[in-house]
Amino acid sequence: MHEFRSVALDDRAGALVILDQTRLPGEVVYLRLSRLEDIWEAIKNLRVRGAPAIGIAAAYGIYLAVRNSGVGAPEEAVALFKHAKQYLETSRPTAVNLFWALNRMEERLAAASRAESRSASSSASVGNLFSALKEEADSIRDEDARMCRAIGGHGLSLLQRGWGLLTHCNAGALATSEFGTALAPIYLGDQRGYHFRVFADETRPLLQGARLTAWELSEAGVDVTLICDNMAATVMKKGLVQAVLVGCDRVAANGDTANKIGTLGVAILAKRYGIPFYVLGPSSTIDLACPNGASIAIEERPGDEITTKWYASPLAPEHIKTFNPAFDVTDAPLITAIITENGIARPPFERSLAEFAR
Amino acid sequence: MHEFRSVALDDRAGALVILDQTRLPGEVVYLRLSRLEDIWEAIKNLRVRGAPAIGIAAAYGIYLAVRNSGVGAPEEAVALFKHAKQYLETSRPTAVNLFWALNRMEERLAAASRAESRSASSSASVGNLFSALKEEADSIRDEDARMCRAIGGHGLSLLQRGWGLLTHCNAGALATSEFGTALAPIYLGDQRGYHFRVFADETRPLLQGARLTAWELSEAGVDVTLICDNMAATVMKKGLVQAVLVGCDRVAANGDTANKIGTLGVAILAKRYGIPFYVLGPSSTIDLACPNGASIAIEERPGDEITTKWYASPLAPEHIKTFNPAFDVTDAPLITAIITENGIARPPFERSLAEFAR
Repeated sequence: MHEFRSVALDDRAGALVILDQTRLPGEVVYLRLSRLEDIWEAIKNLRVRGAPAIGIAAAYGIYLAVRNSGVGAPEEAVALFKHAKQYLETSRPTAVNLFWALNRMEERLAAASRAESRSASSSASVGNLFSALKEEADSIRDEDARMCRAIGGHGLSLLQRGWGLLTHCNAGALATSEFGTALAPIYLGDQRGYHFRVFADETRPLLQGARLTAWELSEAGVDVTLICDNMAATVMKKGLVQAVLVGCDRVAANGDTANKIGTLGVAILAKRYGIPFYVLGPSSTIDLACPNGASIAIEERPGDEITTKWYASPLAPEHIKTFNPAFDVTDAPLITAIITENGIARPPFERSLAEFAR
Repeated sequence: MHEFRSVALDDRAGALVILDQTRLPGEVVYLRLSRLEDIWEAIKNLRVRGAPAIGIAAAYGIYLAVRNSGVGAPEEAVALFKHAKQYLETSRPTAVNLFWALNRMEERLAAASRAESRSASSSASVGNLFSALKEEADSIRDEDARMCRAIGGHGLSLLQRGWGLLTHCNAGALATSEFGTALAPIYLGDQRGYHFRVFADETRPLLQGARLTAWELSEAGVDVTLICDNMAATVMKKGLVQAVLVGCDRVAANGDTANKIGTLGVAILAKRYGIPFYVLGPSSTIDLACPNGASIAIEERPGDEITTKWYASPLAPEHIKTFNPAFDVTDAPLITAIITENGIARPPFERSLAEFAR
């Protein structure tokens, strides 16, 4: 099992401890962040990334902002919270989980504050508000850990000892509190002596597979081999892969799944070679209001991610036209099963997903 | 049409003029090479690359070595040639075309030298040997140009105006004397107003698509869009590609085709989306002695091509295990047609290829 934590609270020191993912894999640097501005910066600049990890960082971050401020009265704490929430929400305006976690913290604060307003001394009551916020942030983290473990358990039930597994992008421990989603069965299997051999797609253009997945699996002592995305077909053809595990950003009601660019291609290859293709994620990514993949808008990102980012010198012609979609949609018929903390959904997904969505 | 020449002779100056491909796309630098050692270095270090271009460079190179030496007697010229040939052969010992071109030059020299030995004055005869060598090198270049144009013509007959085309790696003008192989129909179509829209896979790990294909097509004014390899599935799914054109390193008797890593994956995607998949190359790449792809050994290359080459800082964990096959084999049933200068071979390839192989 890996030793690192993507995000954790050091309550005594009043600091959020974040593994700076922008410096991986070259350097393993933990940041100790006490100021709200620094937490905002860490979310904004992807030092902490992955929907669950962002939610946890924001929850602990806003708790610390209120607690470290030295406010004495409950009303002051509530006012400060509101400002801090508005501020943190600007760090990554498209990160749904950021808003979800901060709203949850706000509701908890409101409930605690209503309870306190019916009681006595203000100095006791502000401490109770702090405790309520910490408890809620702990809950968000603990629920995430349980969710990851449940996904891991369901996923592992589909795998066999010694299998070769292929994954794309990073849906691992770095993105969550502990086990990850797509990688959860691998970590759980590792604890139980399954001895998987994992192939990690490097995942161009942002190289999350090379920088993050390869790093976290090798840190955990898992047998992992890094390949370029275009080598997946050869690895499958050679019989080295018995299952594909990927995460998901959004699952439509019919099972069509948006995930990191390249996932669709891997699914088509897996179909060709008769390899099961599993999508793993929290039930919260199932969007029953979205009928199918055609309704999912795909973000296009700047071309310099393809042409110049990372490189020591230019590796594409200046001003070359590029197409850089950040995600693609894997069609439901390519997916063997969709695994959430609530269980394993199999086709027809229209029926099975409705059962598992939270 | 593009303006550059990958390799050319400046006979008056006694120099081989090479477009240094290692400095593309950042810098367009022509090297003027008169010394045999410099020509050897250019081949060795991939300043000139692609089987036809290497053959042409070696042919002109050995002609210049003999001519520039100042030898006066035919026997001296023959002895010098032998040394130069042995030396040039060490520049890229696995490049079949290098040996093929040098052997052809040697045969021509031997024939010319036999003719001269039956004739008169030695000072006239050494000039005749020089002329014979130059003629043979010119022939090698001219035959390559004709071959490329013939491939282009046959290929273009399969394409329609305004089509979207996808290509992988670089089988273009930089690799040959003029038009390239996989890119020949694109250049020819460009001259005839076909207005293709080309998608170039960047082709990890060595990025020939980004560095070379995107460069040479945009130099020629072709509408080219650079994508990461893992975006090909999305481009096809969106209906932007009507045909795939790729080169080949070796075609087995049954049509199984070895080409740059990633070609197999593209072929599987094309099959899924009902897009014709065309392999283009000189008939000399058809190896009827090789029954099928299982008999083709695939070179594995060092992992640093994946983990560190090109990058400003490390983007994969140190000592991570990698798998870096340089080529893959596309199974014949995935191939719509194999196009050589002699015509268009269609399935069953066992029969059609035997007809077209030279």
